[in-house]
Amino acid sequence: MDMKKMSQDCKRASIMLAALEAEKKNTALAQIAEALGESKPDICRANMLDLAEGKKAGLKEPILKRLKFDEQKIDAVIDGINSLIKLPDPVGKILEARELDKGLILNKVSCPIGVLGVIFESRPDALVQISALCLKSGNGVLLKGGSEAKETNRILSEIIAATAKSAGVPDGWIQLLETRADVNEMLKMNDYIDLIIPRGSNEFVRYIIENSAIPVLGHADGICHCYIDEFADSDMAVKIVVDSKTQYVSVCNAVETLLVHSSIAGKILPLIKAEFDKKGVAIYGCGRTRDYISAETADENSWKTEYLDYMMSVKVVDSLDEAIEHINRYGSRHTDTIVTENKQNAEMFMSLVDSANVFHNCSTRFSDGYRYGFGAEVGISTNKIHARGPVGLEGLAIYKYKLYGTGQTVDEYSAGRKQFTHRDLDKNCTD
Amino acid sequence: MDMKKMSQDCKRASIMLAALEAEKKNTALAQIAEALGESKPDICRANMLDLAEGKKAGLKEPILKRLKFDEQKIDAVIDGINSLIKLPDPVGKILEARELDKGLILNKVSCPIGVLGVIFESRPDALVQISALCLKSGNGVLLKGGSEAKETNRILSEIIAATAKSAGVPDGWIQLLETRADVNEMLKMNDYIDLIIPRGSNEFVRYIIENSAIPVLGHADGICHCYIDEFADSDMAVKIVVDSKTQYVSVCNAVETLLVHSSIAGKILPLIKAEFDKKGVAIYGCGRTRDYISAETADENSWKTEYLDYMMSVKVVDSLDEAIEHINRYGSRHTDTIVTENKQNAEMFMSLVDSANVFHNCSTRFSDGYRYGFGAEVGISTNKIHARGPVGLEGLAIYKYKLYGTGQTVDEYSAGRKQFTHRDLDKNCTD
Repeated sequence: MDMKKMSQDCKRASIMLAALEAEKKNTALAQIAEALGESKPDICRANMLDLAEGKKAGLKEPILKRLKFDEQKIDAVIDGINSLIKLPDPVGKILEARELDKGLILNKVSCPIGVLGVIFESRPDALVQISALCLKSGNGVLLKGGSEAKETNRILSEIIAATAKSAGVPDGWIQLLETRADVNEMLKMNDYIDLIIPRGSNEFVRYIIENSAIPVLGHADGICHCYIDEFADSDMAVKIVVDSKTQYVSVCNAVETLLVHSSIAGKILPLIKAEFDKKGVAIYGCGRTRDYISAETADENSWKTEYLDYMMSVKVVDSLDEAIEHINRYGSRHTDTIVTENKQNAEMFMSLVDSANVFHNCSTRFSDGYRYGFGAEVGISTNKIHARGPVGLEGLAIYKYKLYGTGQTVDEYSAGRKQFTHRDLDKNCTD
Repeated sequence: MDMKKMSQDCKRASIMLAALEAEKKNTALAQIAEALGESKPDICRANMLDLAEGKKAGLKEPILKRLKFDEQKIDAVIDGINSLIKLPDPVGKILEARELDKGLILNKVSCPIGVLGVIFESRPDALVQISALCLKSGNGVLLKGGSEAKETNRILSEIIAATAKSAGVPDGWIQLLETRADVNEMLKMNDYIDLIIPRGSNEFVRYIIENSAIPVLGHADGICHCYIDEFADSDMAVKIVVDSKTQYVSVCNAVETLLVHSSIAGKILPLIKAEFDKKGVAIYGCGRTRDYISAETADENSWKTEYLDYMMSVKVVDSLDEAIEHINRYGSRHTDTIVTENKQNAEMFMSLVDSANVFHNCSTRFSDGYRYGFGAEVGISTNKIHARGPVGLEGLAIYKYKLYGTGQTVDEYSAGRKQFTHRDLDKNCTD
């Protein structure tokens, strides 16, 4: 595979795709949804090959489960495409309009980022979701899925590419990579790729960040915290901790560390322990935690651990400040929640905790594009620039400045013959 | 200098600074402006030392001119601070508000990025402008100025740090680096620094991008184009080309390559040549250009050259498409302008040219934060994510998601006992 040629083709297509009207993109999406429906037997057949190969290779049950792409899952991605069509077009919105001077109008207009390189895990659903998001937002995309889903990914990308082409989408906007070596080549394509979105293990994401000069959007760790304040309602606290920890343990927005205010620890810890015993959650506690409940001994390393399992670190703290400091020190700027009836403490926590998602009196598991109502999600970002938290369509758009003049030169303004007016215009009127 | 400790201190201060009210930040800025006014003699004395040292070291006149920081320049930066105070606070704005369910409200709220590492050129004005922008936007900052401005930068940063501290700004938010070795150390501080903004030569910016895993905002090249369409007004075209090329040759938004439609080349090129002869601009032309006017021979390399001098590459093209393709191939996504009376061609150009700033019938020199009315500018970004074009206060802010609940767990929604409402709220009412 010639990665340079693939990237160049994708870049060239992305320029034309950026100018494609919303209606054409939506028509293409509708036809892709239809084509996927019609190709169910072929897709399932390809998926069977992957599943058979996976079983032969000894893949574990949870991986095989994610790899499976049956009629029901195909219907789900088709539903997803149909809701995506209904979302407003993220491209071409006038974000700001300003008169610099009479006859010199500046518009800040949303536009696609360009070419994205997306590396995702074994679920073939991801290929459909990501390429649909890219098409809707006008971005070209280089996709690399799990090698265990090779056959499924190939047929899905072929259906999407062919259908989009016949619907008038510039050819080349979607390209499928098949090997890990291709990924390494892709990381060098700074001239053609604008953003890399890696989804996968912490080590993998770190590897990408360290080995590419292309900006990366995503997150490595997900060490999320729940802080039970001295003014917490105990019943609510127990409910939120249990949901945050056990509703789905292997995901990035599950809680890993519980912080409890010392004045409430004696009351709350036994209640949590009782619930955790039912669910089989092991506790790694600090010395003071172990004064109240039986637990394994936590050490410095416990605060840095993302268990993704039925395990949790617990620490007793003496103040809101101590909780905030602990989170900013050991957390991964992902999602942290405070349980308290004291609004001032809640605001202080939400203002000083330096995370993408800061919650009051609810479970950390809510930090998710679907639950936020974004319709679709390419991932959760813990970056501090561009897009943060769950990233939907908007995170795949940037803007350009369009300046409409009538022959103006800078010299006229520098020499003082003309003055800028800098008057904000109603952006809704210039639409 | 212990870079890790400096970065940690800056990070710690930035967390508190993020929560500082607008009024306190503005008071601090006003006191800094006042302190700079009162310290004029000391600042000028420090600057004299730098100038004397610079002369002894044989620095050239243009560098000495930029290095000079006299009463007039101090007044200019004081004016700058005073206009910055009047700009709205970029922090704490509710960008989106959505009811996820009754009693479960999601707010997307603007907040500072965190800690910025800014490396700037010899002008001491930059230190004051950048630190004022950072304070206003609630960001901590590690600053590295030109070593030739050592004494001036030191006294300026001391005045700013001390005044801000006495006005209640958390100590440590501003830190001055003094050596190139410090910069190399800074590039490794991923854990504490959120964004690097390098200002300087192309080679330097590339070095930074390749040697840090921290996101970088800025631009390396500035190869800007002017395209004279077949439907251009010749007088306007000449005026715009002359301004774009000669109004200030050594800056990134000056034009480097002129593209002319073949049907108008015979008429327009001699007119431009006549003006360029007066200004002493050397032309490097393609074969067809040299059919019309005398010029040096352009080669493949000419299209990739940022002269920053009285020199320009000229190419005759046969269509708007060819012009767009040339710009997307050789340009640096900075600023490009089309001169035409044909609105459709202008829109096509502005839509398909993949640059941060795309202009119609005006000079490329307009791409600048002050001319755009941003009040202040940290630099011009050719990145395709986060901030693009001139970057002002807004580009130094990101957002966080604040979710206000009343005890909700995800399990209730997954199990179907509750449904999301996903109702957009009027964000102005929740302010």
